[in-house]
Amino acid sequence: MSRLKVDLNCDMGESFGPYTIGCDATVAGYITSANVACGFHASDPLVMDKTVAICKANGVAVGGHPGYPDLVGFGRRNIDVSAVEVKAYVQYQTGAIWAFCKAHNVKLQHIKPHGAMYNMAGKDHKLAYAICEGIASIDSNIILLGLSGSAMLVAAKEVGLRSAKEVFADRAYEDDGSLVARSKPGAMITNEDEAIERVISMIKNRKVKTVTGKEITMIADSVCVHGDGQKALAFVTKIRDALTKSGIDLDNLAGVIE
Amino acid sequence: MSRLKVDLNCDMGESFGPYTIGCDATVAGYITSANVACGFHASDPLVMDKTVAICKANGVAVGGHPGYPDLVGFGRRNIDVSAVEVKAYVQYQTGAIWAFCKAHNVKLQHIKPHGAMYNMAGKDHKLAYAICEGIASIDSNIILLGLSGSAMLVAAKEVGLRSAKEVFADRAYEDDGSLVARSKPGAMITNEDEAIERVISMIKNRKVKTVTGKEITMIADSVCVHGDGQKALAFVTKIRDALTKSGIDLDNLAGVIE
Amino acid sequence: MSRLKVDLNCDMGESFGPYTIGCDATVAGYITSANVACGFHASDPLVMDKTVAICKANGVAVGGHPGYPDLVGFGRRNIDVSAVEVKAYVQYQTGAIWAFCKAHNVKLQHIKPHGAMYNMAGKDHKLAYAICEGIASIDSNIILLGLSGSAMLVAAKEVGLRSAKEVFADRAYEDDGSLVARSKPGAMITNEDEAIERVISMIKNRKVKTVTGKEITMIADSVCVHGDGQKALAFVTKIRDALTKSGIDLDNLAGVIE
Amino acid sequence: MSRLKVDLNCDMGESFGPYTIGCDATVAGYITSANVACGFHASDPLVMDKTVAICKANGVAVGGHPGYPDLVGFGRRNIDVSAVEVKAYVQYQTGAIWAFCKAHNVKLQHIKPHGAMYNMAGKDHKLAYAICEGIASIDSNIILLGLSGSAMLVAAKEVGLRSAKEVFADRAYEDDGSLVARSKPGAMITNEDEAIERVISMIKNRKVKTVTGKEITMIADSVCVHGDGQKALAFVTKIRDALTKSGIDLDNLAGVIE
Repeated sequence: MSRLKVDLNCDMGESFGPYTIGCDATVAGYITSANVACGFHASDPLVMDKTVAICKANGVAVGGHPGYPDLVGFGRRNIDVSAVEVKAYVQYQTGAIWAFCKAHNVKLQHIKPHGAMYNMAGKDHKLAYAICEGIASIDSNIILLGLSGSAMLVAAKEVGLRSAKEVFADRAYEDDGSLVARSKPGAMITNEDEAIERVISMIKNRKVKTVTGKEITMIADSVCVHGDGQKALAFVTKIRDALTKSGIDLDNLAGVIE
Repeated sequence: MSRLKVDLNCDMGESFGPYTIGCDATVAGYITSANVACGFHASDPLVMDKTVAICKANGVAVGGHPGYPDLVGFGRRNIDVSAVEVKAYVQYQTGAIWAFCKAHNVKLQHIKPHGAMYNMAGKDHKLAYAICEGIASIDSNIILLGLSGSAMLVAAKEVGLRSAKEVFADRAYEDDGSLVARSKPGAMITNEDEAIERVISMIKNRKVKTVTGKEITMIADSVCVHGDGQKALAFVTKIRDALTKSGIDLDNLAGVIE
Repeated sequence: MSRLKVDLNCDMGESFGPYTIGCDATVAGYITSANVACGFHASDPLVMDKTVAICKANGVAVGGHPGYPDLVGFGRRNIDVSAVEVKAYVQYQTGAIWAFCKAHNVKLQHIKPHGAMYNMAGKDHKLAYAICEGIASIDSNIILLGLSGSAMLVAAKEVGLRSAKEVFADRAYEDDGSLVARSKPGAMITNEDEAIERVISMIKNRKVKTVTGKEITMIADSVCVHGDGQKALAFVTKIRDALTKSGIDLDNLAGVIE
Repeated sequence: MSRLKVDLNCDMGESFGPYTIGCDATVAGYITSANVACGFHASDPLVMDKTVAICKANGVAVGGHPGYPDLVGFGRRNIDVSAVEVKAYVQYQTGAIWAFCKAHNVKLQHIKPHGAMYNMAGKDHKLAYAICEGIASIDSNIILLGLSGSAMLVAAKEVGLRSAKEVFADRAYEDDGSLVARSKPGAMITNEDEAIERVISMIKNRKVKTVTGKEITMIADSVCVHGDGQKALAFVTKIRDALTKSGIDLDNLAGVIE
């Protein structure tokens, strides 16, 4: 039997001009795939260049992290965009991150929509389909990274894109597999050991307990971790160690879904 | 003896959101290469998508037209950017236009820097070199289109990029081959017949008369024309006819410099 | 008995950098109040300066037209902004247009939220209240111009702002007094004579027939007209003449609601 | 004889959306005047609102800090703007910060141009004059804060604006009173005690030693300090204490120049 594998993905390259967010150079030592911001909700061309260089130096697979054109809102606010708009936004940003990959001679492994685009496309098939069409129109070898069980994965399949299923260590799930909204009680899994246990259960048993106590199927190709601050970095180290000790290998997305 | 050839290039895709500039769909019927704005000084992802589609439908070769991040100034104001900044700006925008070329299955033929970037890099070897490095880092088959005789063409050669020499029908030249600044008297060639005659002389004799009356060498691979308004469109038709009647074939950049 | 009065308002100053929208200098001769864009969804500081000068020269009362920070979407896309965000956006833009009024020694008469902000605040009391608080925090003499019957007018009253009720000549109304969504059949009143008759009925009888044929109360302090293009300008002239012939005087907002 | 007085000014409110710069809440306890960014080179409406609130709570006088529209370059890059452009940029941003002052019921004390605008206007009388005209067009009681001895102070006088002379503790001066460019050796005064001694000499004797050793006149109404990081904050405390011990009172700009 083949060994269990999982990817650890983290948002990177979210600094902008004089502004710094995250500890990219440090977290890159602990993850397997990076979602690199593309200039719409965060980042700028210089930051993208440096971020791809950091990924390459650490053997981290590079993905693009396109977002809505909302820098001041960090791409976290829902915007009533049309399907043709979101497709063009994804194409533009995918081209931009591809350019820096080309310049550093690394592959563009995946695209993971950011923030409000991720959330809206997770539930709206029309947006999800437009995003996947945008990616496929550029390179059908790019992997779509989307919320496990969401409309994005359905759309990827329809369009003919490979996809990877993302789970969250620190978020509770509803019975339908969607994330519990942050505004609701119990949305965050604050106990680190519990969070890690849940992730290991998702990988080993393909199951997770929802906020109501029900057990549902939840497949995990990739676990989303954070790189902003000491606490976040400590958790990445901890989950990494726990996964390894549980006999789960770390690999990038391409390796996990092959 | 092989026939004389020249390219007619025009800036396209300069509309933005609700704002329209130019007569892209019309001028595309008369030119051979388009410089498509990439979102920094003009354009947006939807406009880029439509513009590449128009080029493809008209058999016009697509080039990228990267500019400074100065939408309100239309990229025409000098900004004191560093070489690393301009390189990253060119890489980002080249990737973006490449994406739409990929989506429409057309080739990205060339890059022509826009406005202040074009002017500054025409005289500043460090900026010119950074621009050419940026292009070459992505695809060394892309042609650099720059002012005939300028620092950009020198840099392209050093970096190993093919380049094409651009001339202007409606602008006077200084003795050193640079354009007479628009603020100076005699900067513009307002007589259309004279303008066309000058272009034909550049193509046939590789010579032009400067503002002082001196004859200097001026090689023309491509003539810059404009597509904004009826007068501009009428001139494009006129110069096109005059070139053909003079035995000069029209071809895109790749065809002219092969 | 006092004579009937109404204001004709028009969006102005929507050009941006090299881009032109509207026929500001022409339409200013026919309207009584202008909604001047403030740089978020359209306009820039130079355009604002010129627009206030045009209003002053034509005796048109100046209002601010704050929008969402969405230039490429022209402020027409719903954005999931919080009440504190929208309040600060309104304060910022009100200050900006106030500055140009001060420089031209004219009064800032009113604020009319633009596009998606107008629509969302028309139905969302929390947003409407935040907008009115923002205006009142700067100058409680500013008039709020909002959709007749909407949540904005309720909020203005609560906050202690004077308000003016806006109606649309070319739009059909639902039974609850809201505008029929543009996507629905019958949303637009395309017959100009019918449109004008409806407006006169609203002013004289305070009634309008809804899309279902029901007659509802609809008070009109101001009629929204458009200034983009020859057809729009012709309609402004026509409605102006019809109002005058019907014994309805034209006055700016301050005059109408006094 | 009246006591000596000086103002300590610091840039504040430079955060943007999700991005934080500076320790505004802390440094506000040590300074007398704040230069609050206005959204062009840094800041956003929410940050401006919070910053003015912090200033008010700490009794710090509020000034506006208008910059070039260059967020990614933090307003530090020279842009070839025209005089009419810079005037309109200053008017727009002055209106915006004025709005938040009005909302918090504090006075807008001064305007200090930021970064490249400060540097360019310090040497270019035409730009300086346009900036001062812009300020005066809104409120002629606003004080212009500019480099001691620079073109900005000349223009303020011509336009009829009160002005205040700014000096730098950590920067060396050329014989003509301009700052030694950061790229030159000896540009920075790195010894803190020497820096403080120089400032006290400027206040008491109106003299400073230039980089060549010559003594020139240098009048100090206000000393620029920094609030970004522990080292900067420690220096502010140190210079504050040293000034007080030297019998120099701290007061805001309006108090110093009265």
